[in-house]
Amino acid sequence: MSKGNLTNRKTIHIEWGDCDPAQIVHFPRYFAYFDACTAGLFKKVGLPKRQMLKTYGIIGIPLVDLRASFKVPSRFSDTVVVESEITEWRRSSFCVRHRLFNKNVLAVECFEIRVWAAASEADPERIESKPVPCEVIEMFSAEKDQSPARLKSRRKKQ
Amino acid sequence: MSKGNLTNRKTIHIEWGDCDPAQIVHFPRYFAYFDACTAGLFKKVGLPKRQMLKTYGIIGIPLVDLRASFKVPSRFSDTVVVESEITEWRRSSFCVRHRLFNKNVLAVECFEIRVWAAASEADPERIESKPVPCEVIEMFSAEKDQSPARLKSRRKKQ
Amino acid sequence: MSKGNLTNRKTIHIEWGDCDPAQIVHFPRYFAYFDACTAGLFKKVGLPKRQMLKTYGIIGIPLVDLRASFKVPSRFSDTVVVESEITEWRRSSFCVRHRLFNKNVLAVECFEIRVWAAASEADPERIESKPVPCEVIEMFSAEKDQSPARLKSRRKKQ
Amino acid sequence: MSKGNLTNRKTIHIEWGDCDPAQIVHFPRYFAYFDACTAGLFKKVGLPKRQMLKTYGIIGIPLVDLRASFKVPSRFSDTVVVESEITEWRRSSFCVRHRLFNKNVLAVECFEIRVWAAASEADPERIESKPVPCEVIEMFSAEKDQSPARLKSRRKKQ
Repeated sequence: MSKGNLTNRKTIHIEWGDCDPAQIVHFPRYFAYFDACTAGLFKKVGLPKRQMLKTYGIIGIPLVDLRASFKVPSRFSDTVVVESEITEWRRSSFCVRHRLFNKNVLAVECFEIRVWAAASEADPERIESKPVPCEVIEMFSAEKDQSPARLKSRRKKQ
Repeated sequence: MSKGNLTNRKTIHIEWGDCDPAQIVHFPRYFAYFDACTAGLFKKVGLPKRQMLKTYGIIGIPLVDLRASFKVPSRFSDTVVVESEITEWRRSSFCVRHRLFNKNVLAVECFEIRVWAAASEADPERIESKPVPCEVIEMFSAEKDQSPARLKSRRKKQ
Repeated sequence: MSKGNLTNRKTIHIEWGDCDPAQIVHFPRYFAYFDACTAGLFKKVGLPKRQMLKTYGIIGIPLVDLRASFKVPSRFSDTVVVESEITEWRRSSFCVRHRLFNKNVLAVECFEIRVWAAASEADPERIESKPVPCEVIEMFSAEKDQSPARLKSRRKKQ
Repeated sequence: MSKGNLTNRKTIHIEWGDCDPAQIVHFPRYFAYFDACTAGLFKKVGLPKRQMLKTYGIIGIPLVDLRASFKVPSRFSDTVVVESEITEWRRSSFCVRHRLFNKNVLAVECFEIRVWAAASEADPERIESKPVPCEVIEMFSAEKDQSPARLKSRRKKQ
């Protein structure tokens, strides 16, 4: 929750089917969790993924770059919490940080770079990046302004 | 296949179920491919995963670090080739590089750091890294020595 | 919730990564949901899966038989509810019914037959079915007795 | 391969990530295998899935009904063979049978009913079943006619 970015917190129950024969989460499943967490961030500002795609005419927000470090394994029947935030908006891409905590210990950290992507008009089979609409970026700031701390200071002034 | 490391080449047919509503591979599935490719590398030197775990008393070779860049999307019905190699052996960990090619274009590149991991003797629920057996590292060199170029030079001498 | 069986209700948010290029849930993902729902049933009576395996010395509750009918497709960003119940206890197996509702419409129905399974003592690589402990079956009845209706009638008597 | 239907045979290497903490294939993964096997059947008669969707204007061949029985578990590093065939063509649906063999033992059997499905013209968000084109059904017969037995009898006549 560094730098005061809007943060989404998602509680995930680790399922049997997410784990491998070593009895720990099979690492690709973490990325399915994180993909859902990024969708959760947009949902939090009023953009459930299906509606977001329709409203802005995009095909998705695919990854171009990913880094992750796995510090502590998690097991089925564990309940973990993922904190996610957008750490940077670029012209047609943005950076997301996910931190997965198991019993308050940072267990996995992941950095995604994703693009705002639409089908090419020239060739609908091709995917092109598009500038992220200002409106979308503003939703994240507006929502942040509604945080408890800010609301408290507003009430004071009245 | 840089630096003359032993390389495993795996052909993968991209399935409908590997793709998302944008009609491209859902990125966590790439990591399932790469996990299979790392297993394929060990199988190539004579260590199918189940036998490797039994022989060396390990619970697996889990990841501690991952980096990936996604350059070109792939689609269902595409056939891709993944070239994998171990780029570095450390005391109890090793680095793997995977390069996924779609029609000879580098589409995804991934770097894994994995540990040689066993259940802790003190607490079987805990996982500990162990030194990679020299024998295992040597299998990769020995296999490399059997490469066509080397075999040719051997034959010459006879 | 037929026949007054104990029922578990699980709310599931359908994720982008659960859907295929037809933009609907890829059917194997439904079975991952249902597997989690069966685990949820046991958790509800006080048996989180990890603890259940330890307490009873079993390796899991694998399927022997499955039937499912898919009536209405679901899409990413949909929220669905799964109602699950054990419809029959046999000697070493049991039957589970899952019904997935999307906006109150029955969308998927699934019937599982699972076995209470342990590693064979003769050959730990083999899996054998074991009688389901009476204690476990009774937990499902006991929990049912704690239902609101029952509690109300108890209070009346006091 | 009963009734002389065209059969597709697919060899599958069972991966670590397909298995659960009981060290056996997590059952939903079997259905991902079978989904790929059904696609393989159509590919065999000249209809790779991406081309099939384009040629016939369908969104896919989703399931409406599924039955499976799991007879013997399979483990990572096992190599299994799946034999798949279409057992019945109906107006707008068809039945597929998959049999998964592990070391020549029938380990899993699965019956799918799938529909030939297109987006509704009235409401593109809705999915409608369409009659299976005769042309497609004929491809399966034509291919069958090219079977070794048939070819042998042809050669005899010449």
